[in-house]
Amino acid sequence: MIRKEVFKLFWVIGICCIMTVECSQCPESKSGMLNVHLVSHTHDDVGWLKTVDQYYYGANNTIQRAGVQYILDSVVQALLENPNRKFIYVESAFFYRWWNQQTSEMQQTVKNLVSSGQLEFIGGGWCMNDEAASHYNAIIDQMSLGLMKLNATFGDSARPRIAWQIDPFGHSREQASLFAQMGFDGLFFGRLDYDDKRNRWKNQQMEMIWQASQNLGEASWLFTGALPNGYGPPQGFCFDILCDDAPIMDDPKLHDYNVDQKVSDFLSAAHEEAKGYATSDIIMTMGMDFHYQNAHVWFKNLDKLIRYVNQEQGKGSNVNIFYSTPSCYLDALHAAGKTWPTKQDDFFPYASDHHAFWTGYFTSRPTLKGYIRTTNSFLQAVKQLSAMAGFGYDDRLEELKEAMAVAQHHDAVSGTAQQHVTNDYSLRLSEGVDKGFDQMNDAFREIANGSSASPKLDFFFCPLLNVSSCPQTENSDSFVVSLYNPLARPRNKFVRLPVPPNYGYKVIDHQGNSVTAQLVPLPESLENIPGRSGSTSLFDLVFLAVDIPPLGTVQYHISRTTNSRIIRQQLSKLKVPKNGEDFIISHERVTLTLDGSSPNMMKIQTQGETDIKKRVINQEFVYYEGMVGNNSKEEFRASGAYIFRPDGNDPKPLGNKLKIKSLSGPVLTEIQQVWSPWVSQVVRIYDGTPKLEMEWLVGPIPISDTIGKEVVNRVTLEDMDTHDTFLTDANGRELLARVKDHRSTWHLNNTEPVSGNYYPVNSRLILKSANSDFKFAVMTDRSQGGTSLNSGQAELMIHRRLLHDDAFGVGEPLNETQFGEGLVVRGKHHLLLSDFSTPACDFGCLHRSLGEELMLEPVISIAPTSMDHATWRETQKTLWSGLSAPLPSSIHLLTLEPLNVNMLLLRLEHMYEQGESEKHSDPVKLDLKNLLSWWEIVKMHETTLSGNQWKEDESRLKWKVEKTNDNHIRRETNYAHNSDRDFVITLNPMEIKTFIITVEKKSV
Amino acid sequence: MIRKEVFKLFWVIGICCIMTVECSQCPESKSGMLNVHLVSHTHDDVGWLKTVDQYYYGANNTIQRAGVQYILDSVVQALLENPNRKFIYVESAFFYRWWNQQTSEMQQTVKNLVSSGQLEFIGGGWCMNDEAASHYNAIIDQMSLGLMKLNATFGDSARPRIAWQIDPFGHSREQASLFAQMGFDGLFFGRLDYDDKRNRWKNQQMEMIWQASQNLGEASWLFTGALPNGYGPPQGFCFDILCDDAPIMDDPKLHDYNVDQKVSDFLSAAHEEAKGYATSDIIMTMGMDFHYQNAHVWFKNLDKLIRYVNQEQGKGSNVNIFYSTPSCYLDALHAAGKTWPTKQDDFFPYASDHHAFWTGYFTSRPTLKGYIRTTNSFLQAVKQLSAMAGFGYDDRLEELKEAMAVAQHHDAVSGTAQQHVTNDYSLRLSEGVDKGFDQMNDAFREIANGSSASPKLDFFFCPLLNVSSCPQTENSDSFVVSLYNPLARPRNKFVRLPVPPNYGYKVIDHQGNSVTAQLVPLPESLENIPGRSGSTSLFDLVFLAVDIPPLGTVQYHISRTTNSRIIRQQLSKLKVPKNGEDFIISHERVTLTLDGSSPNMMKIQTQGETDIKKRVINQEFVYYEGMVGNNSKEEFRASGAYIFRPDGNDPKPLGNKLKIKSLSGPVLTEIQQVWSPWVSQVVRIYDGTPKLEMEWLVGPIPISDTIGKEVVNRVTLEDMDTHDTFLTDANGRELLARVKDHRSTWHLNNTEPVSGNYYPVNSRLILKSANSDFKFAVMTDRSQGGTSLNSGQAELMIHRRLLHDDAFGVGEPLNETQFGEGLVVRGKHHLLLSDFSTPACDFGCLHRSLGEELMLEPVISIAPTSMDHATWRETQKTLWSGLSAPLPSSIHLLTLEPLNVNMLLLRLEHMYEQGESEKHSDPVKLDLKNLLSWWEIVKMHETTLSGNQWKEDESRLKWKVEKTNDNHIRRETNYAHNSDRDFVITLNPMEIKTFIITVEKKSV
Repeated sequence: MIRKEVFKLFWVIGICCIMTVECSQCPESKSGMLNVHLVSHTHDDVGWLKTVDQYYYGANNTIQRAGVQYILDSVVQALLENPNRKFIYVESAFFYRWWNQQTSEMQQTVKNLVSSGQLEFIGGGWCMNDEAASHYNAIIDQMSLGLMKLNATFGDSARPRIAWQIDPFGHSREQASLFAQMGFDGLFFGRLDYDDKRNRWKNQQMEMIWQASQNLGEASWLFTGALPNGYGPPQGFCFDILCDDAPIMDDPKLHDYNVDQKVSDFLSAAHEEAKGYATSDIIMTMGMDFHYQNAHVWFKNLDKLIRYVNQEQGKGSNVNIFYSTPSCYLDALHAAGKTWPTKQDDFFPYASDHHAFWTGYFTSRPTLKGYIRTTNSFLQAVKQLSAMAGFGYDDRLEELKEAMAVAQHHDAVSGTAQQHVTNDYSLRLSEGVDKGFDQMNDAFREIANGSSASPKLDFFFCPLLNVSSCPQTENSDSFVVSLYNPLARPRNKFVRLPVPPNYGYKVIDHQGNSVTAQLVPLPESLENIPGRSGSTSLFDLVFLAVDIPPLGTVQYHISRTTNSRIIRQQLSKLKVPKNGEDFIISHERVTLTLDGSSPNMMKIQTQGETDIKKRVINQEFVYYEGMVGNNSKEEFRASGAYIFRPDGNDPKPLGNKLKIKSLSGPVLTEIQQVWSPWVSQVVRIYDGTPKLEMEWLVGPIPISDTIGKEVVNRVTLEDMDTHDTFLTDANGRELLARVKDHRSTWHLNNTEPVSGNYYPVNSRLILKSANSDFKFAVMTDRSQGGTSLNSGQAELMIHRRLLHDDAFGVGEPLNETQFGEGLVVRGKHHLLLSDFSTPACDFGCLHRSLGEELMLEPVISIAPTSMDHATWRETQKTLWSGLSAPLPSSIHLLTLEPLNVNMLLLRLEHMYEQGESEKHSDPVKLDLKNLLSWWEIVKMHETTLSGNQWKEDESRLKWKVEKTNDNHIRRETNYAHNSDRDFVITLNPMEIKTFIITVEKKSV
Repeated sequence: MIRKEVFKLFWVIGICCIMTVECSQCPESKSGMLNVHLVSHTHDDVGWLKTVDQYYYGANNTIQRAGVQYILDSVVQALLENPNRKFIYVESAFFYRWWNQQTSEMQQTVKNLVSSGQLEFIGGGWCMNDEAASHYNAIIDQMSLGLMKLNATFGDSARPRIAWQIDPFGHSREQASLFAQMGFDGLFFGRLDYDDKRNRWKNQQMEMIWQASQNLGEASWLFTGALPNGYGPPQGFCFDILCDDAPIMDDPKLHDYNVDQKVSDFLSAAHEEAKGYATSDIIMTMGMDFHYQNAHVWFKNLDKLIRYVNQEQGKGSNVNIFYSTPSCYLDALHAAGKTWPTKQDDFFPYASDHHAFWTGYFTSRPTLKGYIRTTNSFLQAVKQLSAMAGFGYDDRLEELKEAMAVAQHHDAVSGTAQQHVTNDYSLRLSEGVDKGFDQMNDAFREIANGSSASPKLDFFFCPLLNVSSCPQTENSDSFVVSLYNPLARPRNKFVRLPVPPNYGYKVIDHQGNSVTAQLVPLPESLENIPGRSGSTSLFDLVFLAVDIPPLGTVQYHISRTTNSRIIRQQLSKLKVPKNGEDFIISHERVTLTLDGSSPNMMKIQTQGETDIKKRVINQEFVYYEGMVGNNSKEEFRASGAYIFRPDGNDPKPLGNKLKIKSLSGPVLTEIQQVWSPWVSQVVRIYDGTPKLEMEWLVGPIPISDTIGKEVVNRVTLEDMDTHDTFLTDANGRELLARVKDHRSTWHLNNTEPVSGNYYPVNSRLILKSANSDFKFAVMTDRSQGGTSLNSGQAELMIHRRLLHDDAFGVGEPLNETQFGEGLVVRGKHHLLLSDFSTPACDFGCLHRSLGEELMLEPVISIAPTSMDHATWRETQKTLWSGLSAPLPSSIHLLTLEPLNVNMLLLRLEHMYEQGESEKHSDPVKLDLKNLLSWWEIVKMHETTLSGNQWKEDESRLKWKVEKTNDNHIRRETNYAHNSDRDFVITLNPMEIKTFIITVEKKSV
């Protein structure tokens, strides 16, 4: 799988090299000189103002003059013209679009350029993913997709050593940690807080060692450099066809000869940059967005620049410039032998000036963010099923993987692409899901075939279940529901299926038992949203699916009945409170009381082991008014797709009085609330899984007052002192402590009191009482911006509709509409109180377990059938698990993915941080030999996180650091990852181990 | 000199070819199909919105994204990638900027591409010259400069066969005639009157044989094609990086696959175009302004287009497309064997819609037009002197030639470039003149050395003589004036030298005689114009230089005196008329009376052989108000640099009353008139050369009323019936008859009654009485727009100042300023009446002779000296001629130019049309052996007009035509142009013969 490159091509071009790329392919810095590494590069957004394919082909050029096909075409030519020239390429999504269209001769030419070090892959993921709104599962997938393809095409010698996040709007510590685990030697980025940058420049701390995990120690350390000039060239040296700087005009016979001026300007720029950096090597990024469409223009002028600037050395100049790459630059820094400063927090939020805090995009386009999250869950299921069915590589899965990878781009999941591009991202996901479901159906058949089932069921996927729309459940007299659980342990699930009125339903489980079901009327506010057009459903049929097997399916047989007794039993009882009357829902240990006089005040009473805990919760849906501005000055910045800038620090109430009703029945009780004509909510608590579920429906946000609005859900625990501190997750994994109006590495003068305290929340926001051990978490179903501006208060932004562009490039106001109306968003928050914890599951366990369940929801498929349930049970495999046994409760099965028929990619993850849970944070040892029910693992070889390098070959650069925070970390590392036959592994807290496993079908 | 290309390279690429380029290097048309010739080309303006060097390098890209260096770089690469690809290149000014910077390897690569027919030179002049405002002498020079360089570099096989005038705004018959004489096989252009085009399209007469001379017969015939789509590609097929059309997206895996749509669109476009053209071959110009900066983009998509369109042939499509060139296309048309329609008039004026007549540029930037005209005269003098001094090639002359050639570009002399570019054209001319004068001084020394003169004089050139400013005459106590006469016959010249007040001057001729001189005070309106800042002159010292020798110099010695008697004698007598008193100037045969009551009425009385002729002339300076408009619709077109669109058909009077005075003295009498604060005039008649000279000074045109103004000089001969007909010259040579509100080849609906009747006047506008043989001519000193809107009336536009852009690209209003004020123009009109003719010189002779004198004025150089006139006469060569004898009066020496030390380029021209003059229109036979005084012509070989092909090798394509107007032409052609030893030639009317002559220095 992972090729070791044979370096024979080096001999062809006369360079003797037997080591890794950097040993001889880098230009040598001159000692005593200021060595300037010119890095020719292009930044190719995988969709933004144009779709990824429009960017690839160079279509739709009225929007932006950008065509990646020409970049790669012309770069290859330009590199061939001069062996000193170097170029880096980053985005594999584009590279493979191009590569697949090339002749084998051209492919060989490119291989030669890669071998010689002229063309170097940097980054190498499918895209340059967003770091705020992207989930770690999707980050790992998209990076691995690109890196493993590069490995398959070019071998290990082309393995990117540098992570390259030059454009994302803020940088996540988890992202750095993942990069370190992928074997990267360093990370460079372009954007950091303007004040942070000023400080670092002054102190020559632009480059540092990021200690990127509080659990993983040195394995998470990553050399990190903030680039001097964003990711562009110094002023006056932009030589692209898209630039306006004067070229180097060196024919003295012509007018405007400018060599002397250009050389002088360049020397000034180099000396100026050297002030901010700690060594005598500096980097200049010679490129920009979609540059090098005619690479020749850049290179011709850089050739001249290098010649004329270095000529000055003869006259005493101490500046030495040359073509280089980030890896060559990093090696030069490493060779300096310096001790570097360290960094333990992250680079959020990113502010580019006093009033431009890039925190709006944490929430922008919440439906896209939600769709991406659910598609990730679906993708994992398809991968698992394909792997377990023994399918090997399949174009359909590939399309879904690529769609998900594209969606991680820093203008995709971020919500900062234009509307038509956003539509294209959604279309890709939808097409990918269709293909993936097709493949999933094949897997279902494979599983069913194991039981020689006949007749076959045809399953359908209902993508609009989120708005309670599904033709198969609405229109079939009887149907089979299949639930696939992508978790490595059994789980329960309250299944909700949209159904029309006037029916009752018989629900039969795989053992032939009748299952209690309830008909819950849809909230009125949902009924009429345009996305549901054509749906006949007025009810959700709800029942609890119990013990869905790990990596397995369970089926239910459901049939309609007009039996009025059943209907009556199943119909929920409606209750509308009288004035001032309290509402009470009680489930097992938890009792929820909605205050009759002030129904947004909730009281939660929890029966603990020894005592009863009571909490008063105030929930509000409120909105900020988006700042209006023409962006001509910092003060005139508008709130937009990137920027959250409220007009005033106090959000506005919705105004209308809360309307409320309860619906109760044999399965559950839920409270339906109407907060305003455009905000409603359903509140639920469940038996067995104590959590407070808040399913909100927001939109269309009204704009007839010409005011953009940014809606937040604010949950305040009364009498809870949190000392301005709260926790947010990074990409759904480790938690970071946030302190209001504070940054760890410089003194913050917060010029945006609300926005400047916003942080990305991928999965959870946690508040801890300063005076007691009480904590609570708000768990999200997608990425959002969040903060805590007041003690005990968690604030999460759930929807935004804005009427002005914020002038950072997207060129459109974030005014999403659908069917001519403002977009409606339906989503969930889950509130977890530490009161809910039990001896078996403490608060850490509560939020990690729920986090895992929210991350990978069961996949529901529907097969209409005329089969009765007896026949169904006889002929169908109604219960199946791909695992021989559930994994230990701390261990998450992160990836099970086919590479080929009997070779799989497996990732296992310890999903707890150190000390997070008394019972679950310990190292876990497990034997994988018999992990799968159908397959025996016969060989197992550990790789880096991204699957593109054997773990034993990993040899990342070591750096001297000023201080370390890793002393407290204890880790067990007893697994011999280079032995193919050792199947017993240990996972330490937050550790992910990645394997390429060879499997053999077990005899039945 | 002229290389015969050896076709060995053809063998290398496997093509057997022993004939000319077209025989095997053209793709073969398929019979029965519509054959579409795709011509990949770039249109590279030699200055327009940016200077020529900014365009070359790609500097100043904020104005326009254009860099020619990258075009040539990338085209070469693209041609190498696919041998089917072809490209044409046009502008040698750019090509040689590039060529001179290439390595010899690259030069060889280019030679191979040229040899193989992949890269073809088309046009090939230094620029694509303007056809309206350019003088034929300068056209021939600029074409020859490019074509002879190409010949020297690539040999005869690369000789351009196609004249390519795709962008000029109207097309001159003389230009076509010159092209024919240069050996071109065909001419293509892009712009013609919209109604003319509609007609021709309808009648399939877009292509024709232009019978381009009424004197030269078939030698002037030229196949001429109007291109289908300007010079751009059909809609939807613009694939340049500068274009917005969708590329061909042929990967079915990606979104937006569009091959089927593109093919279908292309087939429609091809069939649509075929309707306008007469054969089954059609041409598509695949390029635009500065396209192919990344040639790969165009070619990659054209490769695909060709592949996919021709694939359709398998499904029954009858469209066949391929890479081609204009010469291949022309050969295909020729092979059709069709009989073609003919054309005898020209394509002026060009209208692009009902209200966009491109007649403003005939006058735009009158000072630039004037400067170019005088620089042409200067250039001819430098060439002649360098040739006669035996200098051979010299960089200085080259710089002047190139500056003049660049100035012929269709946005240069046309006055349609941006102001900063216009400044650069002037700077180039000025630098060229400086270099040229430096070389001229060397020639003067060479001539003086012949007489072993010592001490040497240092001559200076006074470029500001046109505003009576010259430091050397103003500040020197004594100085020598040298007059060089570039005509091949002796001439007289009234010399005017700026001098300060309070001095008289002794003027001594080469024989030691004292010469009568007069001090004429400068017109007051001239004194204070900003351009004269620093000048101390208040007078012109005027004397008559008699018999300046042909291609020779005469010197005068001038010294200051404060002798009050002399001062008194020389000072002009001022006379201001009393109210109602007539003004009378009388010189020999002509008496001019300015009416006392109405001084813009002049009476001219001429003493003929037998009778006295009296004419009444009404002269007016009036102005049109430029139309204001936003150009959003045809009706809203503004008058601008290109477009003349008056607001109303009747020009406005100046308003103020004419002020008048006369100044008389021993040399001449002149009338100084002040018409308004910004228009004044000096009227002169001279002894010996009967003509009425009107020297006007116009500007700054006031704009405080926010109205742009276009000033005309209108001369009306009372009681003269001209039946709406008048004559204008074409590029200073043949005359064309114009009829008001009429076009020869289609029915004109004149939607702009004034502008639609404007024509370019390069040198003269002539009116003939319909009832008598009276005629008159207004001779100009530069190109102007002119017309005759009323009987007996000649109208010439002399200055324009406009406040709105006309939206044809230049993007600036034509609002010329200098030193913060509106530009002032000083120029001359000469009025010639047929009354002035004599038996020796009829009217034809009058205007041809004066035309020649205005075309090549003597060059005045000043050498301050302390030498007294006796020493001067003893030590200096005060009289010298380069000719052994004057040429016959009909023959103009058009070119004498060094190629190398003993090889010269010689052009002789019969400067009369057939029947134009009784005595001067006959064929002239002359022996050139002893033409030059210092050199004997030992070998003489005739070439085509452009000097890049031996005359005997000329074999232009023959065409069948529908009708001919050449029956009346009789020509003597007894010169054996392929004999090197035959020195006797015959020149027929309007014939130009071009020779490369080998000379040997005569023994003294």
